[in-house]
Amino acid sequence: MILTVTLNTALDVGYRVPRLERHGTHRVSEVRVRPGGKGLNVARVLAALGHDVVVTGFAGGRTGEEVRTLLARRAENASAAPDAGSLTDALVAVGGETRRTVAVIDDATGDTTQLNEPGPHVAPEEWTAFLTAYRDLLAAGGGRCRAVALCGSLPPGVPVGAYGTLVREARTAGVPVLLDTSGEPLRRGLAARPDVVKPNVAELAGITGTNEPLRAAREARRRGAREVAASLGPDGMLALTEDGVWRAAPARRLAGNPAGAGDSAVAGLLSGLVEGLSWPDRLVRAVALSAATVAAPAAGEFDAPVYAEMLPRVEVTERTAAA
Amino acid sequence: MILTVTLNTALDVGYRVPRLERHGTHRVSEVRVRPGGKGLNVARVLAALGHDVVVTGFAGGRTGEEVRTLLARRAENASAAPDAGSLTDALVAVGGETRRTVAVIDDATGDTTQLNEPGPHVAPEEWTAFLTAYRDLLAAGGGRCRAVALCGSLPPGVPVGAYGTLVREARTAGVPVLLDTSGEPLRRGLAARPDVVKPNVAELAGITGTNEPLRAAREARRRGAREVAASLGPDGMLALTEDGVWRAAPARRLAGNPAGAGDSAVAGLLSGLVEGLSWPDRLVRAVALSAATVAAPAAGEFDAPVYAEMLPRVEVTERTAAA
Repeated sequence: MILTVTLNTALDVGYRVPRLERHGTHRVSEVRVRPGGKGLNVARVLAALGHDVVVTGFAGGRTGEEVRTLLARRAENASAAPDAGSLTDALVAVGGETRRTVAVIDDATGDTTQLNEPGPHVAPEEWTAFLTAYRDLLAAGGGRCRAVALCGSLPPGVPVGAYGTLVREARTAGVPVLLDTSGEPLRRGLAARPDVVKPNVAELAGITGTNEPLRAAREARRRGAREVAASLGPDGMLALTEDGVWRAAPARRLAGNPAGAGDSAVAGLLSGLVEGLSWPDRLVRAVALSAATVAAPAAGEFDAPVYAEMLPRVEVTERTAAA
Repeated sequence: MILTVTLNTALDVGYRVPRLERHGTHRVSEVRVRPGGKGLNVARVLAALGHDVVVTGFAGGRTGEEVRTLLARRAENASAAPDAGSLTDALVAVGGETRRTVAVIDDATGDTTQLNEPGPHVAPEEWTAFLTAYRDLLAAGGGRCRAVALCGSLPPGVPVGAYGTLVREARTAGVPVLLDTSGEPLRRGLAARPDVVKPNVAELAGITGTNEPLRAAREARRRGAREVAASLGPDGMLALTEDGVWRAAPARRLAGNPAGAGDSAVAGLLSGLVEGLSWPDRLVRAVALSAATVAAPAAGEFDAPVYAEMLPRVEVTERTAAA
């Protein structure tokens, strides 16, 4: 199985309004709720690709319950699909209330305004309980855990060096670990030498000070990442790996909702890793999944026909200058 | 006791953001949740004024549970105050999910952007169950129900003539009934001859076609309201009553959050009614409570020192031209 960690899970609330006006009063025309947080999105895409996935992190309060109920419903629906993998909830209970994230879609422009609650305060003993659960999941059944993804922001109370700790635990357990976060948690996580990091250009710039992707990715490797797969948004991905430097670009840019495109890229990279694909093939999958997610209505979902259409239309080029 | 009806109860979610940008991503700096919907706000103010209140309407799903939990907590806190009345939950269960309303306060400007979910779909048998519960509450213990307030919007599935039905039931039971809604539900409710309606200028204009408050209020009486107390926002209130026409204005305008000012005015009018106050005294109370609510952080609350300060500072004038 593949393990995904979402310390700051969320109830994703999606609103449509005819036109968003600052300081106006709006009657919401459509409401959608989904389990959210990057690692849960990654897990749903991985399960749709046929992988058995276990999700962990924190869930608490009524919104936490709702996240778990929605996740169980998705797991049921997913298991009805012939080729889907299982999706297992191993979230750890927390006394605080899981956050809501509200995405307001403006029908007049198609743009999204996002409001993210900070998340529950996690007490030291809750963090300790999580670490125990995490270790058990990494060790599950002698090598059954084939990879782990550490995703997203930290809720209040979790130590800023949390991802460093989780990376080290994974390395000790011999489980390949991918880190997808930003800011100080990314900086601290890098120092623990994760196998892969998947920042976007802004996240890379935030820790390296440069907007030039190749230079920034090199700096991220220097700081501890064994391999770096940087997302370039609609322009695809850049990977600095032990086998070389690769650039993957979609044949065409798709219009749509970019929420979750990065999470689908993580699912593409991670599934490719456990299936033993080469880096170019992993990048093709990641970029095609990202594009198919932009074409889908929400994070954690992708448009299967668009995915199939894009797969042969991602171009990978190798840069000969060594990383 | 006083009964308040909130067919479309809500979980009021309040967010603070440093600066709201259309199509931006915001980290919410503060999250507050409160029981919401106009009738619940009216009830909280009435209880704080010392009246025993029963709230009914619909509640469903996890947000409905949260509304009821928060209401119970407020009832407990309120009963700790020496002069407060009781607050009793007689909400009727509904299969759908009670709505959220999200108020985003922009710290840079102090303005609020409001997003209101439509509410749960109410099935015909749920509406019938509510009517039975409502009749029982009106009849409670032979004259114990001294007044009823019908407040706010209708959730999907409830007949648009619902307030007409509820007004007629109250009249049959001999319970004075105040109606505070807008649009077609107000128009239909008026025709059933409620004792008092409390529209604001925009709501009056919506059904009468005129923005001139006195003319619009006269038209509302002609359409069935026995008495009309129109809210003029920061300029106070205008009442067309069987005793005369009165205008009440606060000595000074208060800056603050106008959410819930109208609900506090309803609480002022209704408490004055059951206490047998004259119309001028009811208006003084309603206007002072509105001002004290603008000075408080949220609907359903008021600033007690501001209320005490404003009471002797509301000026009431009688218009000699008969209504």
